[in-house]
Amino acid sequence: MIGVAVVGYGYWGPNLVRNLAETPGAKLIWVCDLKKDRLAGVQLRYPTVQITDDFDEVLRDPRVDAVAIATPVSAHYMLAMKALMAGKHVFVEKPMASTSEEARRMVEEAARRRLILAVDHTFIHTGAVRKMREIIENGLGDIYYYDSVRVNLGLFQHDVSVIWDLAVHDLSIMDYVLPEKPVAVSATGMGHVAGEPENIAYLTLFFESKLIAHIHVNWLAPVKVRRTLIGGSSKMIVYDDLEPSEKIKVYDKGITLNGNPQTDGEKVYDMRVGYRTGDMYAPQLDMTEALGRELKQFVDCVVTNSQPIADGHAGLRVVRILEAATQSLAQRGRVIELEQARLIA
Amino acid sequence: MIGVAVVGYGYWGPNLVRNLAETPGAKLIWVCDLKKDRLAGVQLRYPTVQITDDFDEVLRDPRVDAVAIATPVSAHYMLAMKALMAGKHVFVEKPMASTSEEARRMVEEAARRRLILAVDHTFIHTGAVRKMREIIENGLGDIYYYDSVRVNLGLFQHDVSVIWDLAVHDLSIMDYVLPEKPVAVSATGMGHVAGEPENIAYLTLFFESKLIAHIHVNWLAPVKVRRTLIGGSSKMIVYDDLEPSEKIKVYDKGITLNGNPQTDGEKVYDMRVGYRTGDMYAPQLDMTEALGRELKQFVDCVVTNSQPIADGHAGLRVVRILEAATQSLAQRGRVIELEQARLIA
Amino acid sequence: MIGVAVVGYGYWGPNLVRNLAETPGAKLIWVCDLKKDRLAGVQLRYPTVQITDDFDEVLRDPRVDAVAIATPVSAHYMLAMKALMAGKHVFVEKPMASTSEEARRMVEEAARRRLILAVDHTFIHTGAVRKMREIIENGLGDIYYYDSVRVNLGLFQHDVSVIWDLAVHDLSIMDYVLPEKPVAVSATGMGHVAGEPENIAYLTLFFESKLIAHIHVNWLAPVKVRRTLIGGSSKMIVYDDLEPSEKIKVYDKGITLNGNPQTDGEKVYDMRVGYRTGDMYAPQLDMTEALGRELKQFVDCVVTNSQPIADGHAGLRVVRILEAATQSLAQRGRVIELEQARLIA
Amino acid sequence: MIGVAVVGYGYWGPNLVRNLAETPGAKLIWVCDLKKDRLAGVQLRYPTVQITDDFDEVLRDPRVDAVAIATPVSAHYMLAMKALMAGKHVFVEKPMASTSEEARRMVEEAARRRLILAVDHTFIHTGAVRKMREIIENGLGDIYYYDSVRVNLGLFQHDVSVIWDLAVHDLSIMDYVLPEKPVAVSATGMGHVAGEPENIAYLTLFFESKLIAHIHVNWLAPVKVRRTLIGGSSKMIVYDDLEPSEKIKVYDKGITLNGNPQTDGEKVYDMRVGYRTGDMYAPQLDMTEALGRELKQFVDCVVTNSQPIADGHAGLRVVRILEAATQSLAQRGRVIELEQARLIA
Repeated sequence: MIGVAVVGYGYWGPNLVRNLAETPGAKLIWVCDLKKDRLAGVQLRYPTVQITDDFDEVLRDPRVDAVAIATPVSAHYMLAMKALMAGKHVFVEKPMASTSEEARRMVEEAARRRLILAVDHTFIHTGAVRKMREIIENGLGDIYYYDSVRVNLGLFQHDVSVIWDLAVHDLSIMDYVLPEKPVAVSATGMGHVAGEPENIAYLTLFFESKLIAHIHVNWLAPVKVRRTLIGGSSKMIVYDDLEPSEKIKVYDKGITLNGNPQTDGEKVYDMRVGYRTGDMYAPQLDMTEALGRELKQFVDCVVTNSQPIADGHAGLRVVRILEAATQSLAQRGRVIELEQARLIA
Repeated sequence: MIGVAVVGYGYWGPNLVRNLAETPGAKLIWVCDLKKDRLAGVQLRYPTVQITDDFDEVLRDPRVDAVAIATPVSAHYMLAMKALMAGKHVFVEKPMASTSEEARRMVEEAARRRLILAVDHTFIHTGAVRKMREIIENGLGDIYYYDSVRVNLGLFQHDVSVIWDLAVHDLSIMDYVLPEKPVAVSATGMGHVAGEPENIAYLTLFFESKLIAHIHVNWLAPVKVRRTLIGGSSKMIVYDDLEPSEKIKVYDKGITLNGNPQTDGEKVYDMRVGYRTGDMYAPQLDMTEALGRELKQFVDCVVTNSQPIADGHAGLRVVRILEAATQSLAQRGRVIELEQARLIA
Repeated sequence: MIGVAVVGYGYWGPNLVRNLAETPGAKLIWVCDLKKDRLAGVQLRYPTVQITDDFDEVLRDPRVDAVAIATPVSAHYMLAMKALMAGKHVFVEKPMASTSEEARRMVEEAARRRLILAVDHTFIHTGAVRKMREIIENGLGDIYYYDSVRVNLGLFQHDVSVIWDLAVHDLSIMDYVLPEKPVAVSATGMGHVAGEPENIAYLTLFFESKLIAHIHVNWLAPVKVRRTLIGGSSKMIVYDDLEPSEKIKVYDKGITLNGNPQTDGEKVYDMRVGYRTGDMYAPQLDMTEALGRELKQFVDCVVTNSQPIADGHAGLRVVRILEAATQSLAQRGRVIELEQARLIA
Repeated sequence: MIGVAVVGYGYWGPNLVRNLAETPGAKLIWVCDLKKDRLAGVQLRYPTVQITDDFDEVLRDPRVDAVAIATPVSAHYMLAMKALMAGKHVFVEKPMASTSEEARRMVEEAARRRLILAVDHTFIHTGAVRKMREIIENGLGDIYYYDSVRVNLGLFQHDVSVIWDLAVHDLSIMDYVLPEKPVAVSATGMGHVAGEPENIAYLTLFFESKLIAHIHVNWLAPVKVRRTLIGGSSKMIVYDDLEPSEKIKVYDKGITLNGNPQTDGEKVYDMRVGYRTGDMYAPQLDMTEALGRELKQFVDCVVTNSQPIADGHAGLRVVRILEAATQSLAQRGRVIELEQARLIA
């Protein structure tokens, strides 16, 4: 039985607590938060769980094997480092840290102490994203592009831009489903409220191959859109997370290359490029709650000392792109190289 | 009665001919094309129209007051200049020319000879786009963003990239409905077929104000999308051209600014930013054919010597952005200033 | 403070308990169910609530002012009558009873004892249905038809047909929003599983006026549909309960009557009938939970001794139609008169 | 080469003429209509086709092998009989005649003279309906229901009700794709304009087996719907004719029958009934124009003396149902037996 403490009981913390209370192999021991009224709420619903506003008290408890951190991003680094140094495994919300430097140190600290460091990239544990990865592995052909739109009339955040709030989801999904990692990023965007971070942003990601990725995030859209298009030379995918059941559609569509160019008086079409359209299918998806599956996996990793799917390296790669995108955005799209190779010495 | 000749009877020419045959005030005299079989088709359907493969024969005919050019883009400049120099008014397909330099000369030549130079920005004559302009003029508040997606599994073109083929529509619509002109552009994209132009592209347009515009065009998408979001401080618009009747939806949604920031254990939301949601409405639209309305207007402009809505200046502005976007794309998003002021000396 | 007991903690009971625990003016005292394990669940989540499997114990408690019944339909009558005879107000799930005779006796008993008898027609407390009633009251003109489709791949029930399970929703909504009550019903349908009740049914309801209503319910549909069309002479409504926010759309569409018939060689169109199309709008809706609002209202009715919106008469009218529809269905659509006038002597 | 004449150049006639002008094996000789201005239009577009307002002139022409009739329904019988008696093959618009008696005589006359009598059930020649038949033949399991909705704000007709105008499409599709013919019909509906035929109607069709079919047609709906659900024991189909490409979706969904009923305190669910959900797929469809394919087939039938897919018997079956539905509607849903066996002595 793995003893677990949850730190931070604001927006996401209650989901961690609810799931951990039912995760086989885990025993939820502590919930820690700075606000007394929140802790009172915990006690009412989970009378057997201990509450505290003192993180050190949690760390001193030898029954605690792992700490799940669901505080504002700015506190992730400090809390995770303390936990790791106290010999606790860590499950941390995304984005993993405020800077790639912080993330790198977290990765190094966990490695040094042979502790599990998992990042809560929740979406990669959904049936839809796992199916998407399976389809891509089984062959889209050459992957041409990955294009995602994630917009809604959402909660403005005071401390981070829309990139850190929304694009982080797409970056973690891409990190999981694509066979390549990006090598450079160009981002544009705008903040429309004086004194506030950017509320709309566009990221283009470049790869070694001809793959190109693009992410559009917006907190001020009149309609909610969660749609990703993935184009490959043999198949194409539409992933619409707002569809109640047919979230993933696979199209047997693409181009074919044949003969020589031909000329048309109006437009010169390239007859080398033909089109192929076939059936579409929407595979059935596993609809179990992603977070439950993810926490179960985290517990398994702690027990068996194996790496989680979204480990510190994955978290670091995502933070590094967020950081570079923020830098590019400030310079109206100047391309920033990602230098993946040197992320971890 | 204005005598008109159509040059180019390939993809779009037949639409011009069909509409001109019914445009009040216009008399279609000539159709000119290099291909004999196409001309034979004209003669069969329009026995009273004269056909020729010699453009000079058209220009020599004193009954011809105006020439409509629907050839490949590369020929626009040469044909339009010849027509203007022969004293003919010109209606030219979009994009108006292959370079801003060519477009500038066309504008100057028309001005010098006091001839009408109209560019076929067809979309701005649709009921949907005209309604959108009306709504914007009546008040969206501050305009925050203009975001358009125009993707499908489309005809690859040999001579021009997807920017010149598809983004030209969005740029002409923006030129018509927005109260500001862009000052810089950053574009990214990729060509996935060796030896062919880019088939996917993303353009960000910057303005003097905080307005930001973005256009996503793609010839290789598994689904067809034609959707524009326009966000303003008091209202927001969704323009979906694939909707059979409710193409324009106006949302009484937005943000409100109030008190001071407040802190939440999980996320620090800015309580200065509140949300406002109200009714949505979809205005009834004029569904008459845009091209017919546009040609009627061109004839009126020739008769009354007044400027068309999409004149040479509009065409030049659009070409200048296409050119700059192409340049930016080749440099992975480097921002290119548009220097509008110096477009026409 | 009104003391309340909930009887039946199966599918819907937990929702009643959860809402009653937070309803101002109500104090949840008892939860009664025959199954011990369910009661254990109550005790865990609501330690201050008393549990029992003995309904008489509840009725003997003088602190109990009202009983909410959420058992299978077949038990509604017996439990409600016992509660009324014990001087308790009653809130009963829909359908109110298994027969109109039972429902009639419940109404009479409540009237005799001046007790509140409310039926849980939950949908009429949603923002969407309340808005729909408001729009109809403000004028659709003559109401031509009410057409509802409520289909999905749903839970087959053993004891009642799809009419009693799904059409009951539409009948309760119609009872609330339409200005007329139906006078006759014709129903068709089929049961596809041997020994089981009908899983697909179609009801047509006739009225004194030219209004016609139709309900399509189906437990075996591959897709989920919840859509109602209401046609009036001046406006038309589409109510789609699966739309996340724009559940109600009001169309300024209809027919106009003008001149004399005209003849067309192919079809003889009636030129007396013209068409009018205008704007569509989707009003903003109150999205608060219907059940909470409804229970609040029930408590108010008990306190002020006033009639709830869905009182026993409403419940009886709905049961009478369900009964008649079942009768008609068994005779392949033979029309059954509803004889509303004699429902309550 | 089959010589063909078209009678009736109103709404549908021009489509016949346009297709016949390009049908291999057919030579369009005459177009006949009572209106001179329509004939003038024919002459302009098809200068080689002869025009007349005298049907007898057409029938006397020995070059005419077949006559295509596209007049109002009321004239079908008279014109078709004259044509058959003159030894001409007949292609007649749907519905084939105004009464089943007329249709029966047409069938008999054609049989007696060994002439081809084809009915223009256009929809059964579309790629979507042909694919649907193929899927049904390859196995939906037991077919449970066929449910179609065909509503819009449409052209009121003066001479026929919405059943004869719209339901005729669904009946012809059902006749083609279902393995059984209906044995009885119950219909309800209403006319909302004084002196005009019914503008809304609901038809239920009964079969020997447990299959049930239902058709909802409405000329006064605020939105256009063209959607058919077909439920089978092993698969289910959604056919949405308004979808641009994915018109047919096949769901691997259904019920499974297992053990014994189980009881739940709230609802007694039948545990014998389980649910199965799997992948969905949308097969690629042949998008060629149905009418062209159909006319090609008619010409082939004339040449090879074989029966068309929609022959006079199919046309008669559809008319008989229309007639019975009209009768049922007048009696508020009284079931009318179809007595298929005695249709043709």
